[in-house]
Amino acid sequence: MISPTATSVERVPVVIVGAGPAGLTLGNILRAASLDCVVLENESREFIEQRPRAGFIEEWAVRALRQRGLADRLVERAQPHSECEFRIDGERHRFRYAELTGDRHFVYPQPLLVTDLVREYADIRGGDIRFDVQDVALHAIDGDRPSVLYTDPATGERRRIECEIIAGCDGARGVTRTYVPPERGSLARYDYGVGWLALLAEAPPSSDCVVFGVNSGGFAAHMARSPQVTRYYLEVKPGDDPENWPHDTVWSELHARLSVTGAAPLTEGRLIEKRVLDMHSYVVEPMTYGRLFLAGDSAHLVAPIAAKGMNLALYDALLLADALVAYFGTGDRSGLRDYSAACLRRVWEYQEFSQWFAELLHGPSSGDPFRAGSAGARLRRLLGSPAAAATFADSYIGKDPVR
Amino acid sequence: MISPTATSVERVPVVIVGAGPAGLTLGNILRAASLDCVVLENESREFIEQRPRAGFIEEWAVRALRQRGLADRLVERAQPHSECEFRIDGERHRFRYAELTGDRHFVYPQPLLVTDLVREYADIRGGDIRFDVQDVALHAIDGDRPSVLYTDPATGERRRIECEIIAGCDGARGVTRTYVPPERGSLARYDYGVGWLALLAEAPPSSDCVVFGVNSGGFAAHMARSPQVTRYYLEVKPGDDPENWPHDTVWSELHARLSVTGAAPLTEGRLIEKRVLDMHSYVVEPMTYGRLFLAGDSAHLVAPIAAKGMNLALYDALLLADALVAYFGTGDRSGLRDYSAACLRRVWEYQEFSQWFAELLHGPSSGDPFRAGSAGARLRRLLGSPAAAATFADSYIGKDPVR
Repeated sequence: MISPTATSVERVPVVIVGAGPAGLTLGNILRAASLDCVVLENESREFIEQRPRAGFIEEWAVRALRQRGLADRLVERAQPHSECEFRIDGERHRFRYAELTGDRHFVYPQPLLVTDLVREYADIRGGDIRFDVQDVALHAIDGDRPSVLYTDPATGERRRIECEIIAGCDGARGVTRTYVPPERGSLARYDYGVGWLALLAEAPPSSDCVVFGVNSGGFAAHMARSPQVTRYYLEVKPGDDPENWPHDTVWSELHARLSVTGAAPLTEGRLIEKRVLDMHSYVVEPMTYGRLFLAGDSAHLVAPIAAKGMNLALYDALLLADALVAYFGTGDRSGLRDYSAACLRRVWEYQEFSQWFAELLHGPSSGDPFRAGSAGARLRRLLGSPAAAATFADSYIGKDPVR
Repeated sequence: MISPTATSVERVPVVIVGAGPAGLTLGNILRAASLDCVVLENESREFIEQRPRAGFIEEWAVRALRQRGLADRLVERAQPHSECEFRIDGERHRFRYAELTGDRHFVYPQPLLVTDLVREYADIRGGDIRFDVQDVALHAIDGDRPSVLYTDPATGERRRIECEIIAGCDGARGVTRTYVPPERGSLARYDYGVGWLALLAEAPPSSDCVVFGVNSGGFAAHMARSPQVTRYYLEVKPGDDPENWPHDTVWSELHARLSVTGAAPLTEGRLIEKRVLDMHSYVVEPMTYGRLFLAGDSAHLVAPIAAKGMNLALYDALLLADALVAYFGTGDRSGLRDYSAACLRRVWEYQEFSQWFAELLHGPSSGDPFRAGSAGARLRRLLGSPAAAATFADSYIGKDPVR
């Protein structure tokens, strides 16, 4: 085990573990409030600026980032999406959710957002960010003087940062969550029972919007990523080996599951990413323990059914930032006290929606006639009922449905 | 096996097997069109006029029965319901679905409806109905000259009725469904994984509307049946023994799961029915085979989550009646051809809704934190979002959501 002793000790109000969208958004807002913090990241700057991840940001989040001065480049470069399309039994059904909600998605690959946020934090706002740190460990998070330890990659020296608050923004594989004692929180988990073969193709998008192909032979999806790169998904068996899916098989299945008359044919391209995601979700509840506040994927994973993960990470970061600014500025603890419940409200809203939507997409290919019949009814209601469409649109674009 | 030979042979265009709401509605409409039919029922008239069953009829169905002259007494005596109530964590949430849809439920116990329909069919419209028949068997339903055989209870004589069409309206435990060869149809089945202890209490209703009690300790419901009798449900383990639920236990659980401040306390009474329903649903698809047309519970069972079963039975009967009148009147086969698909559209709509609603009711007590969290979000959206409320209201009252 790593000892809490360290050769170098610093003090700072907030340590943020993880330089993803949550950690960097939080860091930027703290810096704008002149609140000192350190961001620790165990990968390099180059790595996190290129790692392919999510790509769809909901308009409420864009507005919030913009208000914090964090969305200039995003707004300039992102492609706004107002519609999605369902392809069912050879027929196209456009779904114009922006007409129903006033809100759009902004397609902006996560590496670009991370690049913007790192630049703003480190190069413009003068924030302290340390890359390539090793063996991050938390200490005494249930007391008044917690600290974060890590190994400096340049010197191999063990360093210790004493702080008041630790923000655990280190993602699904991070360490901060492991410091919540099992008896102090629950880990709720849901397994969808399907795999998604996640593909990145070196090919321009074949539609101007997200396309969901709903078939008895298996679900497929198309999502624009950039003018040169397109994300595709194919429903596969959980645990399937990507090697079972050579280039030609992938493209023939994509054609079979996504082609409809009247739509442009799919543009093929080299497959530069091919991974099988065993679709699952989890929620840590509560999202806090002592002086540790989890944000983003460290607290909750949402299977990428409806591109919700990064949006929840941003929501957490915005709430936590406001709570910390209030706490350090005026001593007001209410934001920190209510943080977990406020985040979890949206987390469960998105989880419930993703589950509901997943069943609509996967039911027809489940091989279970009851699930298929029920999913068909869900789809017909969505496409035929104005009230159901409005309900779906609110959830799909992440508008708080409670008005 | 029963031989198709019989000592007595008659001929009639339509034989209806089963004198429940579906069979009697169908018989009445055929009689009004002067189309000859025979209704065969294996119970006595007294029995079917008293058997406790469903109690909530959706307004579209009341309108349709009224148009056929079958709802005079129903409209006079039924209690219309415009609202339901959710009781969650000690708080009351009224849900005014009639305000959202214009439609109400009519609370009218099934025995009363059956009594009305038998009287109208047999005593007023002069319809042929035979009670207490035994050993009903179908013959040659995939040919042009099917027949129905049964044993006459008075003489013990085996009788045979040749016909053109057989309507299988003999419910969940009926025989007609068994004549669909397995390779010609699918039986889709869904098991909810919970039991409902179904109770009839000799006590006046304790609320002016249906009450759903949603609790981590288990679901409960209150439904008015008549001024003297109230239906209650308690979520229990599937396969639980009603003997595990003595009078005092039942009432203390009902109080625990349904009491809220501000609401009238439950009025206790003697429990005159106490059964455990293992909640499940099924759908036979297609609902026809050869000259056999299934209607109601013989084709589909809907767990009584949202009181849908009798309404679907009436829907089937109305469609089948129109199709038969057209076929025998003008030779138009289109109604018969489209019958199964038209019925199944509403069947799946109701099944999907019942599943969705059941998860909202049972998730909080499932013991699975993911299901509980997701159900909580579903409930908050229903109670907080006008769009979600409108969607729910349409499904709850059975309005065709596709306008």
